Amino acid sequence: MTSPPEGPRRAHVVGLGLIGGSVALGLTAAGWAVSGEDRDAATTADALALGAIGRGDGADAAVVVVAVPTSHVAEVAAAQLAVRAGAVVTDVAGVKGPLVAALDGPRYVGGHPMAGSEQSGLHGARPDLFVGATWVLTPTDATTPAGYATALSVVRDLGATALALRADDHDRLVAMVSHVPHLVAGAMMNEAARLAESDAALLRLAAGGFRDMTRIAAGHPAIWPDVCVENRDAILAGLAALRGRLARLEAAIAGKDRATILEELAAASAARRHLPGSTPDPDELAYVRVPVPDRPGVLAEVTTVASDADLNIYDLEIAHSSEGRAGVLILVLEAQGASELASRLEARGLRCAVEPL
Amino acid sequence: MTSPPEGPRRAHVVGLGLIGGSVALGLTAAGWAVSGEDRDAATTADALALGAIGRGDGADAAVVVVAVPTSHVAEVAAAQLAVRAGAVVTDVAGVKGPLVAALDGPRYVGGHPMAGSEQSGLHGARPDLFVGATWVLTPTDATTPAGYATALSVVRDLGATALALRADDHDRLVAMVSHVPHLVAGAMMNEAARLAESDAALLRLAAGGFRDMTRIAAGHPAIWPDVCVENRDAILAGLAALRGRLARLEAAIAGKDRATILEELAAASAARRHLPGSTPDPDELAYVRVPVPDRPGVLAEVTTVASDADLNIYDLEIAHSSEGRAGVLILVLEAQGASELASRLEARGLRCAVEPL
Repeated sequence: MTSPPEGPRRAHVVGLGLIGGSVALGLTAAGWAVSGEDRDAATTADALALGAIGRGDGADAAVVVVAVPTSHVAEVAAAQLAVRAGAVVTDVAGVKGPLVAALDGPRYVGGHPMAGSEQSGLHGARPDLFVGATWVLTPTDATTPAGYATALSVVRDLGATALALRADDHDRLVAMVSHVPHLVAGAMMNEAARLAESDAALLRLAAGGFRDMTRIAAGHPAIWPDVCVENRDAILAGLAALRGRLARLEAAIAGKDRATILEELAAASAARRHLPGSTPDPDELAYVRVPVPDRPGVLAEVTTVASDADLNIYDLEIAHSSEGRAGVLILVLEAQGASELASRLEARGLRCAVEPL
Repeated sequence: MTSPPEGPRRAHVVGLGLIGGSVALGLTAAGWAVSGEDRDAATTADALALGAIGRGDGADAAVVVVAVPTSHVAEVAAAQLAVRAGAVVTDVAGVKGPLVAALDGPRYVGGHPMAGSEQSGLHGARPDLFVGATWVLTPTDATTPAGYATALSVVRDLGATALALRADDHDRLVAMVSHVPHLVAGAMMNEAARLAESDAALLRLAAGGFRDMTRIAAGHPAIWPDVCVENRDAILAGLAALRGRLARLEAAIAGKDRATILEELAAASAARRHLPGSTPDPDELAYVRVPVPDRPGVLAEVTTVASDADLNIYDLEIAHSSEGRAGVLILVLEAQGASELASRLEARGLRCAVEPL
């Protein structure tokens, strides 16, 4: 048996934005001694003031977490590997193939936490950002067990669950579940916006399904050029596969081939209903629609009623009617909770309607 | 001046499934005298027992609502127009062009309530199914003001808001905001499921964005063959436009054309952020982003703070990060109100960020 390490584990974080700041806060909270640096000296000072990092220079760090913008990761990680001879270096970039190709060796372990935030920068960082998240690690033949264990200890101490994948598998899978959906949502939103220029009524008809489907398109666009270029092959393969599937569906529709249309949509329905997740199945969820006057207070009233009844609201939005001031508040709850919320609201004189998702 | 009608308004509903049953229940609740029929005698008996319809035969109905399966609407509506010489006939089918072409005349007004349910059949019917929904009506040059007013009275008395559209405009817009998104969600779900057969890890990586985007694919597939065939031209045009847009994006990615990728996604982001069509000028609005644990109470707290400060929330949604455990509450307010809300929330220990729309 080896003796336990003396004192706290030591980590150094390079890049103290949302992700790097959250790593620093989370590891500090987990008892690590964390140092860090940002190219912006004011950010480094803020991180010190927040207690995300201490004053060390990371000379004795067991692990370096590189959390700089994607296009700088290879350069920064290579420099860290060269400077800190004893340390394992990991990163958080969303595309892994090019980095593993550039950095492969016993002391580099690629990583990608599947967690994010609409916020950016250190001010949005939280120690619990990764709790419950999946965090991909991409070991290679060159990865040593000790190196992997070091990277894994970071993931676990941040409350995430590690998933080991080959870098090219990661990139192919993420292309399909993240990159391609984002691009398709963007394309669909743009096509709808083009149509809405001449037909403003389109916005009245854009109900829950369309809103769900295009929600991710609202995200900040700045990261996507790099992601698209770096994961180019997998994204192009995913888009081509999707376009091929759409083309076959178009042929079935053009040929009035009802059997093929039904088969395709029945398969999709079954697959979606079986998609696992921490939120309940769509079958178990329901909408509550509440027509509300567009004024302060109503929202608080509705959500306070939900809160008092210990009902969890999974999603909500306000759909505005075009004719002025009234809107419809749309809440998503588990079906039983939806019925309960509706009856409580009705008891307060608010009309509402419950319908399955 | 005409004298007011004597006694309640009279409606006859043909087809007593989810939609027809809900129309019957809703009109009955609004004080109409409702009769009805279903091809299944047991369903008609159930509707009587439920009080959705009374015992009349509809001979004196002012309006007939045809709510039979889409592929039978033309035939049934034509028969009703022939049999009930004084009545306005309307329907609830999701594709309007072929019906208007077949049935156009002074006594037919096409309709499409933009509300539905994953349930089916009379047992899923509710009097409030249409409360707050948009209900498209498709008047033509042949439509008389009196005929339109009669159809409109049904819509209003069910709590819906009418939107008058040309039938071909309706079909084109609905193709883009409903039919094409549904088909694309199905195709994406199937492509992901195909990949998941060999890479089960895919399901671990399918986080909030993918789940949002494929949610509608979970719906029952049975209606789609008819919808696809009947709105074939508009759906094929929408799918072709989308595929063209994806092909241009693929060319940009293949050519590492970062500027075009950014332009496309920035346009989509701006369009999606403007989607609610809120009353004030978008330039005067701002987002407040608040990371919140996904539990009851937080929402009420945030909205109560807004309410206490007399701040109007124009739109809001929860963006789920990681795997559904924590999320970001995104509120849209006028810019000044956004700053005020943020400082009030920060005073309560909630981090938040304000940014222009």
